[in-house]
Amino acid sequence: MLVFAQFGAGRIGAIHAANLAASGAARLAHVVDVHEAAAATLAARHGALASDAVTALRDPLVDAVIIASSTDTHADLVIAAAKAGKAIFCEKPIDLSLARVDQALAVVQAAGVPMLVGFNRRFDPNFAELHRRIAAGAIGAVEQVVITSRDPGPPPLDYIRVSGGMFRDMTIHDFDMARLMLGEEPIEVFATGSALVDPAIAAAGDIDSAMVLLRTASGRMAHINNSRRAAYGYDQRVEVHGSLGRLTAGNRVATTVEQADAAAVATDKPLPFFLERYADAYRIELAAFIDAVRAGTPMPVGAKDGRQALVLAEAALQSLRDNRPVRVA
Amino acid sequence: MLVFAQFGAGRIGAIHAANLAASGAARLAHVVDVHEAAAATLAARHGALASDAVTALRDPLVDAVIIASSTDTHADLVIAAAKAGKAIFCEKPIDLSLARVDQALAVVQAAGVPMLVGFNRRFDPNFAELHRRIAAGAIGAVEQVVITSRDPGPPPLDYIRVSGGMFRDMTIHDFDMARLMLGEEPIEVFATGSALVDPAIAAAGDIDSAMVLLRTASGRMAHINNSRRAAYGYDQRVEVHGSLGRLTAGNRVATTVEQADAAAVATDKPLPFFLERYADAYRIELAAFIDAVRAGTPMPVGAKDGRQALVLAEAALQSLRDNRPVRVA
Amino acid sequence: MLVFAQFGAGRIGAIHAANLAASGAARLAHVVDVHEAAAATLAARHGALASDAVTALRDPLVDAVIIASSTDTHADLVIAAAKAGKAIFCEKPIDLSLARVDQALAVVQAAGVPMLVGFNRRFDPNFAELHRRIAAGAIGAVEQVVITSRDPGPPPLDYIRVSGGMFRDMTIHDFDMARLMLGEEPIEVFATGSALVDPAIAAAGDIDSAMVLLRTASGRMAHINNSRRAAYGYDQRVEVHGSLGRLTAGNRVATTVEQADAAAVATDKPLPFFLERYADAYRIELAAFIDAVRAGTPMPVGAKDGRQALVLAEAALQSLRDNRPVRVA
Amino acid sequence: MLVFAQFGAGRIGAIHAANLAASGAARLAHVVDVHEAAAATLAARHGALASDAVTALRDPLVDAVIIASSTDTHADLVIAAAKAGKAIFCEKPIDLSLARVDQALAVVQAAGVPMLVGFNRRFDPNFAELHRRIAAGAIGAVEQVVITSRDPGPPPLDYIRVSGGMFRDMTIHDFDMARLMLGEEPIEVFATGSALVDPAIAAAGDIDSAMVLLRTASGRMAHINNSRRAAYGYDQRVEVHGSLGRLTAGNRVATTVEQADAAAVATDKPLPFFLERYADAYRIELAAFIDAVRAGTPMPVGAKDGRQALVLAEAALQSLRDNRPVRVA
Repeated sequence: MLVFAQFGAGRIGAIHAANLAASGAARLAHVVDVHEAAAATLAARHGALASDAVTALRDPLVDAVIIASSTDTHADLVIAAAKAGKAIFCEKPIDLSLARVDQALAVVQAAGVPMLVGFNRRFDPNFAELHRRIAAGAIGAVEQVVITSRDPGPPPLDYIRVSGGMFRDMTIHDFDMARLMLGEEPIEVFATGSALVDPAIAAAGDIDSAMVLLRTASGRMAHINNSRRAAYGYDQRVEVHGSLGRLTAGNRVATTVEQADAAAVATDKPLPFFLERYADAYRIELAAFIDAVRAGTPMPVGAKDGRQALVLAEAALQSLRDNRPVRVA
Repeated sequence: MLVFAQFGAGRIGAIHAANLAASGAARLAHVVDVHEAAAATLAARHGALASDAVTALRDPLVDAVIIASSTDTHADLVIAAAKAGKAIFCEKPIDLSLARVDQALAVVQAAGVPMLVGFNRRFDPNFAELHRRIAAGAIGAVEQVVITSRDPGPPPLDYIRVSGGMFRDMTIHDFDMARLMLGEEPIEVFATGSALVDPAIAAAGDIDSAMVLLRTASGRMAHINNSRRAAYGYDQRVEVHGSLGRLTAGNRVATTVEQADAAAVATDKPLPFFLERYADAYRIELAAFIDAVRAGTPMPVGAKDGRQALVLAEAALQSLRDNRPVRVA
Repeated sequence: MLVFAQFGAGRIGAIHAANLAASGAARLAHVVDVHEAAAATLAARHGALASDAVTALRDPLVDAVIIASSTDTHADLVIAAAKAGKAIFCEKPIDLSLARVDQALAVVQAAGVPMLVGFNRRFDPNFAELHRRIAAGAIGAVEQVVITSRDPGPPPLDYIRVSGGMFRDMTIHDFDMARLMLGEEPIEVFATGSALVDPAIAAAGDIDSAMVLLRTASGRMAHINNSRRAAYGYDQRVEVHGSLGRLTAGNRVATTVEQADAAAVATDKPLPFFLERYADAYRIELAAFIDAVRAGTPMPVGAKDGRQALVLAEAALQSLRDNRPVRVA
Repeated sequence: MLVFAQFGAGRIGAIHAANLAASGAARLAHVVDVHEAAAATLAARHGALASDAVTALRDPLVDAVIIASSTDTHADLVIAAAKAGKAIFCEKPIDLSLARVDQALAVVQAAGVPMLVGFNRRFDPNFAELHRRIAAGAIGAVEQVVITSRDPGPPPLDYIRVSGGMFRDMTIHDFDMARLMLGEEPIEVFATGSALVDPAIAAAGDIDSAMVLLRTASGRMAHINNSRRAAYGYDQRVEVHGSLGRLTAGNRVATTVEQADAAAVATDKPLPFFLERYADAYRIELAAFIDAVRAGTPMPVGAKDGRQALVLAEAALQSLRDNRPVRVA
């Protein structure tokens, strides 16, 4: 049994704690949250203690931490957990500042602790299978990737204001997916965006609609389209073109029911949002973390992946501001 | 917490025990199985005792039983559980003999205990949603039902010999589904069948391929097609035609991945068999049972449903033997 | 250039005449219709003469006839055309009476003229491709066939009264399709039916909803479901199960447009009726007739096929009346 | 009857001539081609004369011309036809040089003759229906457009060398489609591309894989992805996101046959190439031209559309060369 301390008792924290309990391979010992009531409730549900960070990290029984608190606390907690020698499962992004990410990762590296960054979509069975087929050569050499990633509705303006902007908050997942599917690092980013959904988002200094192009050294290309609104649900699709064919992974639906009537032939809308669409992904992700910690094998999504997606997000932001393609190291 | 004793520690028993453990609303206290090692293993996994039937049913803490042992033990266990005042979750069929079913149900009725018969497909989210739409009037008055129900491969001959024949063992689920979707009791059955998959099945006195027609008093019709073999997986579909349109519920797939290459555009095969296809259904079914017992509300699939499906199966068998339509009461 | 006389200038006649004109391999010389104005109009459109039957059949330039007049005239015209030595393309059914069909076919055989019976669905590219794959062994030995055949709405009662009943008028196409796909003659028919769409149809002595089972000597089975009404359009599907897999051919749609909005994900309804769905089939059918006449090769759907489908329709009618399975020779 | 002279008796010329013959509203009087034998053959097939350009344009009976000869002859023929007062149907592009296009269009305008530029995809029933729904407000305000446009295989290098490059030859259709679907003129283009399919294409100074972003003044965006190779056929899809939902139009297939076997569930590949996919579009396009000429109504795709798509293609080429977004007037 791997023993966990978890930081963050919010929506995503509740998911991780439940998956941890159901995994049969781990036990939650501490829950830490600035909202003490939330921590207490979640801790009680899983037979854990509502603790503070220092207590949780000093507990020698704790093997690993889940960092699912607000983004601005991630880097500090990563550093503290690394210094305490704990294996780290950290929700994305590690931090909104690349400098701060590098600081944290240096500590992680020095401590030699394993770290997984929470790009949950890599564990979505659909995207994972698509990637498996690429790796198996099903479509030959990858040439182009098209990623559709659209939220059902925008988050509150208060969240948008501290989110680091759409590219760091939302597109960051797609940058990770693009890297994974391209099989080669993007070296250049061009991004364009507008506030088409809500002018208040523009007033808050952000965009809500974006299109991005990525290019690799060998000439592979990726396109990402994003919107903070999709009337029909959460739209999450990946399409990869290779020399021998095309692979697509589409949305999941609640049921296979089809209704044909005088109006149309209608099927289910995509699952509403990430909690539903990525329920399996969250479960598999945590299990993969537990397995890798126990087996001492490399993390399926490592610290470098967390950093590189942020590098692309920052380049996209720069591209948007300057209206030019931006090179990335 | 509802306290359970479970009879049967085989494949389906393991599923129910795991769902029970994960439900958060119930606790497994006893596991009973003629294979004591199997009982001990499953009991240990869930913190229960490996008991014998008498002990389990005498335990005053036990509120309910799950009967997932071999078919020939169902009726005796139903009777014993009813006499002990326990709520009963019984896998289908209650018995292969209608007389014996009636005997058992009389005891259940006399005891006044709630009883659910395990027609798990009613709880499949796809079929349940289809039925919900019929009830909501989405396609007007139901006119015709077409049920496709095909196993990936035949069971062992030893099983077939004691199964009561394809209609009682396999089609019984489809008879229940036909009743549900027709919204009216079938009054006549015509069945035809052959052994097209394996001559050894014919030698064992059974068929492996069948087509059935059902008719209700008002002239509604249902068709069932069955096979013990489908090269592409477990084929489980329902199609309902009404005065205002058509509803279908199709197979589930593991992923939405589509591969287009020089050969074809290919998608996933249906999920392989009932454990995968009906995983959700089993979980929802048990939760519905627990909810109904706790709330004292009627069972979503009751003893009468268990009986009536068997009546149709027997009529189908008679029809097959006599090559004529057979009336049912 | 094959020279044609055509009997019948109605809806289906207009289609054949247009296909004939566009084929580039044939010329329409005579159009005959009891409605002289209709004959004149169609003849004028294609540079033909509006003639009477005698004139048309006496014309030594005429190689072939298309019989697309009302059903009750078919047999007489077949006989007259055969005696005149013309190749015959005859719309189904040859006649509503089997005795009369046999009379006509005897004359055709004696005359040695080629004859195609208009089972246009065999030429539908979807069904034809499905059949080609069966023949190529794609799904191994055929075991079960499921045919869905539903009209968008019932014909006028006046038509129903002279139609010979649903089995001879509508299901006859499905009997032909079942024979084709089974690859073996059905030896027994069981049929059930009701008037669920319109009680006036019952009052006219007919049914509007039916389900049929067919069985062959080796134990293969086919199911047909019919309705005179489908709120969503013309529903024409075939599903064939074999030892190695399943083949289905579905409906055609006008466009591939998919609309996802707050309500659903909606696609096109099936094409409205036979003129749209089978437009390609009618064209290919006539071309196949012309090719076979010119090459002297066997007809792709012969006189025997026309007869056998009627035999099945009569057996179905008998089965419906007697409520028992009926053997066919 | 509208009387036509046609320039070009190649593959696309043959299609237009056949559609013209079948339209019932037009007659082909002259066919002109530098390959005299080709002109003679096509002319003979349709009862026309094999003429030279001067003769054809001087014929006072000729109402309209179809220009389907090689691209380098288009502008001269447009000018000559305009001066002769003929209505003009001109295959895209009008010319590879914008200056030359403007010259030709000035003559057309001066002559006051109607002119349609052959963006056949606008007449594809799928894309046309998608556009009709946008216009009807089905998805509210358009926000983003994603166009997938991939050829089955690259053309001969000899063709590529004179094609004006991928953007002017192939993407030009997608630029037109983007303009149509955006409902607003793009003001900026960013393009990236590589030769991933064949290094010989790079050696010929062209690319074979491209991704493009377009932006309008109000912030709408479009993405185009192109490849000269798709192992699975001709991939032609459009996806439009609006404030109320999403519309997509996908590929067409030859049949609806689905094969489920031990390997997968497989359906037809997209139709192989433009002759098959756009057969309907070519027919409808010519009919729309004929209708507009006869009725004196505006052309559904006018000279300005032909010019503007070329403007975008040139901007894309500039963007590719300079690796920066390029403004268009």
